[in-house]
Amino acid sequence: MDKLTEKSCVEFAEVLASKSSVPGGGGAAALVGSLGVALCSMVGNFTVGKKKYAAVEDDVKAMLIKAEGLRLRFLALVEADAEAFEPLSKAYAIPKDDPTREAVLEKATLDACGAPVEMVKCCGEAIELLEEMRVKGSVMLISDIGCGALLCHAAMESAAMNVFINTKSLTDREKAESIETEVDSLLNKYLPQADDIAASVTHQIRGGD
Amino acid sequence: MDKLTEKSCVEFAEVLASKSSVPGGGGAAALVGSLGVALCSMVGNFTVGKKKYAAVEDDVKAMLIKAEGLRLRFLALVEADAEAFEPLSKAYAIPKDDPTREAVLEKATLDACGAPVEMVKCCGEAIELLEEMRVKGSVMLISDIGCGALLCHAAMESAAMNVFINTKSLTDREKAESIETEVDSLLNKYLPQADDIAASVTHQIRGGD
Repeated sequence: MDKLTEKSCVEFAEVLASKSSVPGGGGAAALVGSLGVALCSMVGNFTVGKKKYAAVEDDVKAMLIKAEGLRLRFLALVEADAEAFEPLSKAYAIPKDDPTREAVLEKATLDACGAPVEMVKCCGEAIELLEEMRVKGSVMLISDIGCGALLCHAAMESAAMNVFINTKSLTDREKAESIETEVDSLLNKYLPQADDIAASVTHQIRGGD
Repeated sequence: MDKLTEKSCVEFAEVLASKSSVPGGGGAAALVGSLGVALCSMVGNFTVGKKKYAAVEDDVKAMLIKAEGLRLRFLALVEADAEAFEPLSKAYAIPKDDPTREAVLEKATLDACGAPVEMVKCCGEAIELLEEMRVKGSVMLISDIGCGALLCHAAMESAAMNVFINTKSLTDREKAESIETEVDSLLNKYLPQADDIAASVTHQIRGGD
């Protein structure tokens, strides 16, 4: 399969819109995560080398390395999410009276949770980086920090939705609930942090009204 | 200038991350809007032709045309946002004692509001379409409707942030407030609608807990 992320933005949006199961909401979420953390990098790249920010230069450089790693992980997750869909689609196509169907479908459904769970984790890391960059990065680019937080928030919730649509149909309820609990705890930790970043940026731009 | 949206997703994310002012938060917002409305199209494309949805087929086909138009408008806004930045950047470079500076900067700042205001409007239209598709489209793809609403919500707030960062520095306060009022009224109308779509989808997937 050709890499989805090698397609142009125009083509990616077109194939997302088309009657093709991949990419879908999961792949879109991962791409949006990569854009959110890219904005964190952009702010860092405009911060390093500035006298005003010399005291935090080493911290910002360390953040830039982490942010680049996250961007690449998000992009790889666009592909991983698509790759997990094919076995799931084939499992659904197994005749309902085939005795192997349930086990194959269960495994494919569980595997399809992998990429979106990883996206949720990456979004949490991206939101932590954005918070640190909000504090240490150039104030000239404060709106880009705000946008980054908004995009990572949406990517995280979208990825979680793609976890829950899969765990919902797992027969192994213990496994399903264990995955859901892990994802919920990440959402509960990081979504409010992303909200706080966006609110703080809005306050800086618009003042106290 | 080469079109930003003709770059691959990998390259777009890379240039977004780089020390280059465009694309920035505005361009990312427009791209995310295009992905959100593309998910609406995907659901529609899987709905048409299905017996179960024959009664709404004409409505879904009409929505597909609108959604495609919106996707292309969002992608054009990635470019328009970048194009408005160059004159703004040049205006900032005019020496502070040049008597033409203030007027040139004011015009460039006002022009830079154009693309993000248009993005906010497109997000509103996309959220309306997603709500109609949630009701009429295939329930098999309900999570994609939810993701679409989450992405358009984030795109709308991000675009608005890019309006406000510009209106903040306009000298003509009457003009600034008129733009801000228009954007606020769209945010107040459509952000809760996007929240309702996402909440309704989450309820459908996870049940009443």
